[in-house]
Order: sequence, then structure tokens, then C-alpha cells
Amino acid sequence: MSAAGTIFSKIIAGEIPCQCVYEDERVFAFLDIAPLSHGHVLVLPKEAKAFLHELSDESAAAIGRALPRICRAVLAATGATSYNVLQNNGSAAHQAVMHVHFHIIPMTTAGGLGIAWKPVHLASDEAVALATKIREALQ
Amino acid sequence: MSAAGTIFSKIIAGEIPCQCVYEDERVFAFLDIAPLSHGHVLVLPKEAKAFLHELSDESAAAIGRALPRICRAVLAATGATSYNVLQNNGSAAHQAVMHVHFHIIPMTTAGGLGIAWKPVHLASDEAVALATKIREALQ
Repeated sequence: MSAAGTIFSKIIAGEIPCQCVYEDERVFAFLDIAPLSHGHVLVLPKEAKAFLHELSDESAAAIGRALPRICRAVLAATGATSYNVLQNNGSAAHQAVMHVHFHIIPMTTAGGLGIAWKPVHLASDEAVALATKIREALQ
Repeated sequence: MSAAGTIFSKIIAGEIPCQCVYEDERVFAFLDIAPLSHGHVLVLPKEAKAFLHELSDESAAAIGRALPRICRAVLAATGATSYNVLQNNGSAAHQAVMHVHFHIIPMTTAGGLGIAWKPVHLASDEAVALATKIREALQ
């Protein structure tokens, strides 16, 4: 799915203002305007793709490289010591803007990401079959 | 913080069995044994660091590059179309094993990641000051 024309493409192009915190050849990062906590930052590839599984190797490696650097700066600026990195794909998974973005969300007493963790059962024979299918899909 | 000696280092070393789905020079991925949905995969750097902000550029770029490839395979194997990628840092942010790991969690009718999204207020002058501090920390 093409992500051209989302609000994030306009922000990257400078057509909509933002509080930019980082930019390199392939990556752009700025403060979320509706943050879950102070220091909530969005890290985007400049490549306009909706979903992480559509992203080129080059953009994906550049985002990966930038994330720890930006996390260090967010921690230094906010004093937070715990944080979540979250990247949502699809409306059913809480994605609101259809341009890949990683959230860096400091966990503070005043706010942060709320997580509900409810494991499901996976039988060992199902696990073997599933892992085999994933490995085969990676060939 | 060193992550040497966690259960994940033992899994990467082959000392504890797992359902491995992907491995390259710097990255290792396997099925979560207590999955939130079928196809829940953990993607780790072989580098033993507890937190994302401690990770080397090389490991971080390698993880970034591997993530879309593994996501594509998880979607192909499970038939899911929506998913979350989550990486937790610190006990307060739901990190259980102190070795960096990214969760790939398919969203299915039978399970998935539960998210609570409660924005906080950030005044525009506070946003300007915060973005300035983060940019300065990135210098």
C-alpha cells in the first residue's frame, strides 16, 4: 500500500510544521502532538510505505540504526529510565496514519503506554508446524 | 547493563531449545513460548545488551533490516494482516528478560496485543523546549 499523501509525508516535506528532533538521509523523527507521555517521539522512514513488511532493506536498516540514538536522547532529555518502542500495522492493530512509524514512549508517573498481556495456548506440535511455515516463508 | 547470562543468551547459544525461525550473523528470532497470538515471534540481537539505547549501530541496523523480512514471513505463515511490533525497556515498561527483544505480534480474532492509549497534555511551549533538549542530546 502506498503511503504517499498522508499527513506524515507532508510533515517530512516541511509542508506541515512539527517539532523535529532528528533527521538523516532516510529517517525523520518528531514529537507526537498527542503524546502518551512527555518525550513521546515518532520515528519514520522517509520512504512512504504504510506497513513495516513493505519497507526496503535500506530504510529498515536506517530506522534500526537511528532508534537507539534517538532513545538515548529522549532518556537524557526527559530523565525517564523505562520506555516502550511500538510500531503498529493495520487499523485493527491501532495504526492511525498509514505511513510506517515507530513510537518511542517514555514510561513516567504521569503517563506512558498501557499494555494488556494475555497469552494464548500454543501446543508444542502447533509450535513446530508454525515455526516450520515461518522458516519456509523466509527462504 | 550487561545482558550476558539471561535465558535468551542460552537460547541463542543453543543451550536451551527453541523454535527458531530466523538467524543471521547478528540477529536471532524464535517463537515466543507464551504467545499473545499464534505467530508471536521474538527478534533479538545476538549482542547481549539489556536495553535498546545500549545497542551498537551494527546490531541495531541488522535488527532493523531483518524485521520487515520476518514480518512478511509471519504474515504469510499465519494469514494475519494486522500486527504490532513492540520492544520494552525496563521492568516498569513490561520488560521481563533483560536482553533486547522485539515482539512481532499478529492481531487475530483469537489473540493479540492489548493497548491502552491515553494521551496527556503537552503545551506548545513545553513541546518546543522538549524538542530542543532532545535535539541537543542528539548532537
